Amino acid sequence: MRRKAAIIGGGVIGGGWAARFLLNGWDVVLCDPDPDAARKAGAVLDNARRSLPALYDRALPEEGTLAFRDDIAAAVSGADWVQESVPERLDLKHAVLARITAHAGSQAIIGSSTSGFRPAQLNANGARAVVAHPFNPVYLLPLVELAGDPALCTRAADILRGIGMYPLTLRREIDAHIADRLLEAVWRESLWLVRDGIATTAEIDDAIRMGFGLRWAQMGLFETYRIAGGEAGMRHFLAQFGPALEWPWTRLTDVPDYDDALVDLIAGQSDAQSGHLDIRALERLRDDNLVAILRALKANDHGAGQVLRAHEARLPQPETAAEPITLQIQVPASWTDSNGHMNESRYLEAGSAATDRFMALIGADAAYIAGGKSYFAVETHIRHLAETHEGTRIHARTRLLGHEGPRLHLFHRLLRQDGTLLATVETLLLHVDLTSRKTCPPAPALLAALADMARAQAGLPAPEGVGRAVGDKPAAS
Amino acid sequence: MRRKAAIIGGGVIGGGWAARFLLNGWDVVLCDPDPDAARKAGAVLDNARRSLPALYDRALPEEGTLAFRDDIAAAVSGADWVQESVPERLDLKHAVLARITAHAGSQAIIGSSTSGFRPAQLNANGARAVVAHPFNPVYLLPLVELAGDPALCTRAADILRGIGMYPLTLRREIDAHIADRLLEAVWRESLWLVRDGIATTAEIDDAIRMGFGLRWAQMGLFETYRIAGGEAGMRHFLAQFGPALEWPWTRLTDVPDYDDALVDLIAGQSDAQSGHLDIRALERLRDDNLVAILRALKANDHGAGQVLRAHEARLPQPETAAEPITLQIQVPASWTDSNGHMNESRYLEAGSAATDRFMALIGADAAYIAGGKSYFAVETHIRHLAETHEGTRIHARTRLLGHEGPRLHLFHRLLRQDGTLLATVETLLLHVDLTSRKTCPPAPALLAALADMARAQAGLPAPEGVGRAVGDKPAAS
Repeated sequence: MRRKAAIIGGGVIGGGWAARFLLNGWDVVLCDPDPDAARKAGAVLDNARRSLPALYDRALPEEGTLAFRDDIAAAVSGADWVQESVPERLDLKHAVLARITAHAGSQAIIGSSTSGFRPAQLNANGARAVVAHPFNPVYLLPLVELAGDPALCTRAADILRGIGMYPLTLRREIDAHIADRLLEAVWRESLWLVRDGIATTAEIDDAIRMGFGLRWAQMGLFETYRIAGGEAGMRHFLAQFGPALEWPWTRLTDVPDYDDALVDLIAGQSDAQSGHLDIRALERLRDDNLVAILRALKANDHGAGQVLRAHEARLPQPETAAEPITLQIQVPASWTDSNGHMNESRYLEAGSAATDRFMALIGADAAYIAGGKSYFAVETHIRHLAETHEGTRIHARTRLLGHEGPRLHLFHRLLRQDGTLLATVETLLLHVDLTSRKTCPPAPALLAALADMARAQAGLPAPEGVGRAVGDKPAAS
Repeated sequence: MRRKAAIIGGGVIGGGWAARFLLNGWDVVLCDPDPDAARKAGAVLDNARRSLPALYDRALPEEGTLAFRDDIAAAVSGADWVQESVPERLDLKHAVLARITAHAGSQAIIGSSTSGFRPAQLNANGARAVVAHPFNPVYLLPLVELAGDPALCTRAADILRGIGMYPLTLRREIDAHIADRLLEAVWRESLWLVRDGIATTAEIDDAIRMGFGLRWAQMGLFETYRIAGGEAGMRHFLAQFGPALEWPWTRLTDVPDYDDALVDLIAGQSDAQSGHLDIRALERLRDDNLVAILRALKANDHGAGQVLRAHEARLPQPETAAEPITLQIQVPASWTDSNGHMNESRYLEAGSAATDRFMALIGADAAYIAGGKSYFAVETHIRHLAETHEGTRIHARTRLLGHEGPRLHLFHRLLRQDGTLLATVETLLLHVDLTSRKTCPPAPALLAALADMARAQAGLPAPEGVGRAVGDKPAAS
């Protein structure tokens, strides 16, 4: 039976939680008094559907069902996770958490999306919530800050990892947790910079994304500064830059007046900066960039990319079949080109991933490669048969055309879910010794697995299009 | 004649400036009293050589020459740009800038890498420096904060754009400019978090890179918050979150004691976090991630990726030839796979870029596509003939095998600089109407360009390997 999440409060954050759970196969009940809640949650969910699955080279579980309830008691009934995401007012949080605590099952995790309140504040009236503070867009960014009862946090962390998130548990609870403390500090300095006419909102944004923002997508503050210390390391950095860093510390830590004039100034500058795009267009732009950055980090197996890899490894493999499914992916926006469809090179990226999966199926996996043997592709032929667009879910099925000594001959068909054949990728590989970089015979276990595969596929009809050269007439294929 | 930069101070920042200028074809003279300066600059330059050229799909200019001088007067003689990067002590900066001002040519831009001093402070004794504050690694991150005399800043900005950087000129000078104001605020909060035992250095780094750091690699603070405001926009965000944001503003803005205990705590945690990698390994890790992120943003034509595209468009095109050079790239680390060489799919990524360049040469460029016509690849054959490794510079040469009506038949050879043939990519394309998505005849000007190309290539010998099917014996080719 699918697990159930109840999301109390359906704004940008609540909607993002709903999408994260739904796309990971949970049923979701959303509770929000706003009559427009369903439409708003639908917009977030549409965003999530075009982005989250594009991060993985394996299919996410079948999407859960989404229901709406007016009443908290009905919403939380039977839920394994209840997430409170109502506005940031302590009296409101108290009322909502009291109702959740009264009606949720005793095993349910109750998480609060609060960006500032401590668990002791949230639970002052007897609730049993933990802080589970996510970051927008919740369906893409892995981080969730956890604070509260240690045993509850441990259970919560397990569940969050299961939906692809990165739980970070605070060692002690504190106002505004970790990240919002840092964000608040930047926000305060930025208000001064705008108010004092040093830079506009667009210029401050550029000061971030053209410089340290790029660093922080992959390493944080301390590791970056460790590198700045050079060969002498972190202690050297602390000794060298400590005194210099002290000056600005002592300045401008008071708070600018948050008055109408400052609000007008910032809102006006923001309009000049981004007003040519509506909010949905801005969200798509952001998500397409995040998907591209996250996939880049995933390819490098670093930071948030490692979180993706760990989650992908937990996703269910497709059922085995005589002609196995060797790839499932939703085409990311960054895979498309100026012709408005998937760029030709991405067909081979898909084909290469399918080859990797086929290799794992026959035992030529990471451990085999670590043992000093692998297959190298030496020749490939691709037919682009139908256009493939952003957001389309495609999968690959792989045929073993033959194997003899070090030679291995594969044929991938890339298919749409409706069965439309999008492309074929025919490839010849050679088994090599990774030290000498020369061909050598595959290990006996691998040969046995290939023989099994050949036997399983013996009854299948020959695939169409094998052995073509570029420009052959269809009749010759 | 090549332009000349004099870099005064050869640490991590000075070395990064030297590398940025050298790889953009400037001659560089480096002046530093450290007897180990040449080795240290060499290490930075090695890093830069493996990373910066991997951002572009066109060759950077021929690298300039690097010389070392002990004396500032000799170093700055004839320099078009002098960059001061000595330690952050005002008396030292004054002495160095006085000597630079006395000996540099009157047309030379004098930039200071200071992270905190204002131009008025730097020039108190009659120097004529502008602040030109870069970010580590200087050879990869585009941002340079400029402050000082407006006419000098305008000239400086032009030069910086020419070496691929993103100059951001402050509207008014201020201590610590823009980015370091923000970084200082984060630093101060982070010191509290570590000192108070809320989180370790590694956990704070994760709170950044698993969450808002990913956002900030592509949008900054204000645009991100605009999105958080949802459909109601920035003004709604300011109204809704203003009051909530106020609480932490008023807290913890005093400064923790920067004593031995705090230094020991941070240095120890940093060792636990990153001590298993030496500084060079950390730098390579960082640079490989930055290259992958920057290339992802370049593909999406956004943020720092737009800076790269603009710079790439200014790089010289290779000389035209009967068989034109259609791609020049240095293989990024992220293009390699677990076999320790360039992944098969990157050969088609290279081939696709070569096809795009060939299209531009015959007039089927972005403007032509905007007019509603383009070519779609329908079939491709690749031979992987020699292994290609990270850092190898490769180029493509393209042959027009034939064209008839909508059909276009191309053959790319991917070559190493020593002439070794790495791969061939044979591709068949069809000219299409982008509205109907059906084939149609190319425009007359395009047909004329193809005829010219065919005529120019008529005398060339037929390339080896055309028309092969996968697995054909070499004799059959």
